[in-house]
Amino acid sequence: MSGFYGVPKDLSVLQKQRVEYSPELPPSLRAEKIGIEYSDTTTSADSLSYSLLTQYLPHTYGQPLVHFVENAAADSGDCTTKEHPVVKVGFVFCGRQTPGGHNVVWGLYDALKKNNAKNSLIGFIGGSEGLFAQKTLEITEDVLATYKNQGGYDLLGRTKDQIKTTHQLNEALVSCQALELDGLVIAGGANSNNDAAQLAELFAASKCKTKVVGVPITLHGDLKNQFVEADVGFDTICKVNSQLVSNICTDALSAEKYYYFIRAIGRKASHVSLECALQCHPNMVILGEEVASSKQTLFDITNQIADVVQARAQKDKNHGVIIMPEGLVESIPEMSALLNEIHSQLKRGVPADDVASQLSPWASALFEFMPPFIKKQLLLAPESDGSAQLSQIELEKLLAQMVETEIEKRKKEGNYKGKKFSAICHFFGYQARGSLPSKFDCDYAYALGHVTNHIISAGLNGYMATISNLKNSISKWRCGAAPITAMMSVNQFAQDPSTKTVGKLAIFPATVDLKGKTYEMYKKNCTSYVMDDIYRNPGPIQYEGPGSEEKTFTLCTGEEDYMGKIKDLQDHLHKVQNIVKPGCSQDVLNVALSSMASVTKILTIISSPSHSDHSYL
Amino acid sequence: MSGFYGVPKDLSVLQKQRVEYSPELPPSLRAEKIGIEYSDTTTSADSLSYSLLTQYLPHTYGQPLVHFVENAAADSGDCTTKEHPVVKVGFVFCGRQTPGGHNVVWGLYDALKKNNAKNSLIGFIGGSEGLFAQKTLEITEDVLATYKNQGGYDLLGRTKDQIKTTHQLNEALVSCQALELDGLVIAGGANSNNDAAQLAELFAASKCKTKVVGVPITLHGDLKNQFVEADVGFDTICKVNSQLVSNICTDALSAEKYYYFIRAIGRKASHVSLECALQCHPNMVILGEEVASSKQTLFDITNQIADVVQARAQKDKNHGVIIMPEGLVESIPEMSALLNEIHSQLKRGVPADDVASQLSPWASALFEFMPPFIKKQLLLAPESDGSAQLSQIELEKLLAQMVETEIEKRKKEGNYKGKKFSAICHFFGYQARGSLPSKFDCDYAYALGHVTNHIISAGLNGYMATISNLKNSISKWRCGAAPITAMMSVNQFAQDPSTKTVGKLAIFPATVDLKGKTYEMYKKNCTSYVMDDIYRNPGPIQYEGPGSEEKTFTLCTGEEDYMGKIKDLQDHLHKVQNIVKPGCSQDVLNVALSSMASVTKILTIISSPSHSDHSYL
Repeated sequence: MSGFYGVPKDLSVLQKQRVEYSPELPPSLRAEKIGIEYSDTTTSADSLSYSLLTQYLPHTYGQPLVHFVENAAADSGDCTTKEHPVVKVGFVFCGRQTPGGHNVVWGLYDALKKNNAKNSLIGFIGGSEGLFAQKTLEITEDVLATYKNQGGYDLLGRTKDQIKTTHQLNEALVSCQALELDGLVIAGGANSNNDAAQLAELFAASKCKTKVVGVPITLHGDLKNQFVEADVGFDTICKVNSQLVSNICTDALSAEKYYYFIRAIGRKASHVSLECALQCHPNMVILGEEVASSKQTLFDITNQIADVVQARAQKDKNHGVIIMPEGLVESIPEMSALLNEIHSQLKRGVPADDVASQLSPWASALFEFMPPFIKKQLLLAPESDGSAQLSQIELEKLLAQMVETEIEKRKKEGNYKGKKFSAICHFFGYQARGSLPSKFDCDYAYALGHVTNHIISAGLNGYMATISNLKNSISKWRCGAAPITAMMSVNQFAQDPSTKTVGKLAIFPATVDLKGKTYEMYKKNCTSYVMDDIYRNPGPIQYEGPGSEEKTFTLCTGEEDYMGKIKDLQDHLHKVQNIVKPGCSQDVLNVALSSMASVTKILTIISSPSHSDHSYL
Repeated sequence: MSGFYGVPKDLSVLQKQRVEYSPELPPSLRAEKIGIEYSDTTTSADSLSYSLLTQYLPHTYGQPLVHFVENAAADSGDCTTKEHPVVKVGFVFCGRQTPGGHNVVWGLYDALKKNNAKNSLIGFIGGSEGLFAQKTLEITEDVLATYKNQGGYDLLGRTKDQIKTTHQLNEALVSCQALELDGLVIAGGANSNNDAAQLAELFAASKCKTKVVGVPITLHGDLKNQFVEADVGFDTICKVNSQLVSNICTDALSAEKYYYFIRAIGRKASHVSLECALQCHPNMVILGEEVASSKQTLFDITNQIADVVQARAQKDKNHGVIIMPEGLVESIPEMSALLNEIHSQLKRGVPADDVASQLSPWASALFEFMPPFIKKQLLLAPESDGSAQLSQIELEKLLAQMVETEIEKRKKEGNYKGKKFSAICHFFGYQARGSLPSKFDCDYAYALGHVTNHIISAGLNGYMATISNLKNSISKWRCGAAPITAMMSVNQFAQDPSTKTVGKLAIFPATVDLKGKTYEMYKKNCTSYVMDDIYRNPGPIQYEGPGSEEKTFTLCTGEEDYMGKIKDLQDHLHKVQNIVKPGCSQDVLNVALSSMASVTKILTIISSPSHSDHSYL
């Protein structure tokens, strides 16, 4: 079977040009001397997470943040000048194929070979399956030749499932020991990085020399936190989806007779839909986060859309474009509850055909209301992470049907006087995943590949490779590593307010922040989208000329460089320490003391739990 | 309502750059002196067409081919040096929105203004509806500002229907007379150019001064003949579809668990599917023309696909990509016959719900075999040109279901031992129509706009603007005009061999030529597509750098410059005449005589009907 992988590809003109493209590296990775600086040890978000982290991941919890810098300072480590012993690293693609994945492999390969020509990189074939079964492919310049800057995961294939059992964890351990790996790189989203954290802990506890490193790469853009500004692939996915959404907007405006209902990739989070909205200005976006926070029902959403259709018809506009995230169904309270009931029946072994008869009265009533195609889709077995098979549930079709019925009703009542409502539904779930990666994703992924090498080289275990300040030019990117445990927390369910169930310890996918700047930007403009048809077409991904350097609004409106600021703070503390050394003047000491006392007092107050509680009042 | 049209657009970075792009013009259109040369009068394909053409289109039949040339020769007309009287031209977008349409308007506008600053161009709003109702928008530099090199037809909106009735023809005549138009430009596909021919004839017969000019622009690429090498929009549509198909190929190869069934735009003709196949190398392409010529049934096609799935499973490949044209259903003999029966019932006024009970026994049996969703789609009323609502009939889903059933059967019989067959279906019918046009389409459309002006300026009526030698660089493009009547013929139905029904006189959409070079190129390579997964990704449309000058394989393998060769022949004949003038030597005359006698003899033989009959034996 390994005969399929890493075989040379037949390349188009553009692919050939992309293969020749050398991503630019940020200064710290280009430097002759790459230094490593350790920041403070990382902490956990809350006391419950702390107790669970120290209990379940004691070996990998509380490690310091790490920064890779050019021109290593005297007191910092140095990754490059000391003799590099020969290392052997393994690589696994986890989760869905995402544009840019091949460049992580390439970047890691180049960095490994730069350190020591005898270093080697092996890829596991078919993702975790290959890891368990030790199915490998040695990465060489020849193997990489036609995969540089190319989309897909076809160099190696990918994991079909999460690492779930202790048996699987042990198989991975045995493989890494048998292959004498110094490092294991897991490239994937939140779930895959949770797997990486588990492996890192197991390896540390078992005194296995293999260092586990995670790389943030996912289509959905939902592995986001203070350390991770963006996921590899999100830029490309948004650009391809925006291209298609905006083509459809132009189509709607030219044909003037259809309402297009588009469901975009992104699972439960609406990052892709929100970015597409900012890029293309479709008439409506149903954000899962808005629906969940305002507890909108299916009927509320239907009415909201029907109101727009009616208002537009009054202006003689009988067309429009409405987008929504792949997993909107899970954000609608009653649908989510219905899915929960169905899934618990299925888990109990009730055959799909019998589930309907076992539902509670209200769930049964809702289920029976659904058209047959949705019934069938709701009854599909849940995925390995417990969520519904979101790609398969055609909520856009359900909504289109419900809006049609509502408009018919309003017509009969004399409230709707527009032309016939015609909907065309699209699910953009597969069209972008195999795309050629954008320039940004090529550069970012290649640089992250380099970072993973430096993490392994520094002997760090259970870290995720990070690059921050991404919204600025590559020359300002800052490279580092954050312990995966620092991104983990515990969710608490409170189905009945008196009892709290403690959920699992994990990195949770980030949803759209309704207090964030990206959403704010959208809110400021979205009312004009509804009626004015100010559609905008970002066009296809460009590799040269105008447009080729464009980044997502999501990235550009995101919080500024948390990792970099942590480092800057560290630098200030160091400077104070260096200025106020024993022997300094009394004046200097007094000023330092009073200033620092004031700073610590302010920080103590604003970081106390009671303060943060107040801020929400 | 006209308030919606021609309003400035909100442009993205790439759109802004495209607005700034000035298409290059071929030398004959850039020339200070543009000459007009008349070739021979055009003829009809057969005697039946001749008799109908002379009967129904006597005023516009038999006009000469026209070439626009730089440095006008002494004996040719000259479009540019004489004083240009002020002209007023109207423009109509017909048929589906197609990338490049706006550039035809722009090219025409620029050429008109170059001739005389007082010339004016008006656009009809909403296509033929606007033409009948005299709803117009004056095209100005301001109106065009944000539409140059942009997709869609939203500058003016488009025709929803063909011009069908005498009443409509007369309304158009009244409009053109009332608005005192010197020219009327109809941009569209085969059907719309048929309408243009009817209008031209009516206008000529009515001594209306308005000259009607057609422009070949259609998504489907099926307005092709010896005069028309390519349609505006086809290049872009193929590129966007190829981008998506190849993304899905990469996806299939990365995920290794799905068969993707993709139905591509193109109505009954398979031009887009064939081009995508040459660009992306999917595992299978079901060409409508192959199916029709070998009379494959739905079950034959199902078995053919199942055989491929089975053979691939034996090599441990459980994924694949299969593409087919939008209108494949009409190429499958029994489905086409079923549709005919259904349509004739519907035409007779039988309600859709009752049609099933009125079908003939065999048609009824076939209909009852279909799953409910297809039944519903087959019962949709036919379009205005008599064909089924091809975009609505999800044949890809039907085939996927039938293949699944077949594979299940083979599994039970022990013949199929692969993994579970999982299909995902796509219809790429709307995603490309509103795309930013490719560089080729921008250039071609803009140049055609210029040509239409010269046609009107030369007082020609019932012509289509043509540019030939398109596969070469713009500096070698040759501009001309061909009478639309020269592209028309009559189809003869022979449902029962003894009686031939004479159909309508029209330009018929061209299907893929199974003896042509494009098909030959595909046949040479398609066997390796099936098993080897040599997927190729042409990537997104580029506007700068490598890939931006790429043209379709369909164009590049097409026949070389028929219009240009006609002109070259004319030039040779002229030269002979100039050399062999009375007074030349006896020797020269003798050589000319014997050479020409031999040429005429050869041509007489090979162009006789009996010869062409023999060539098919």
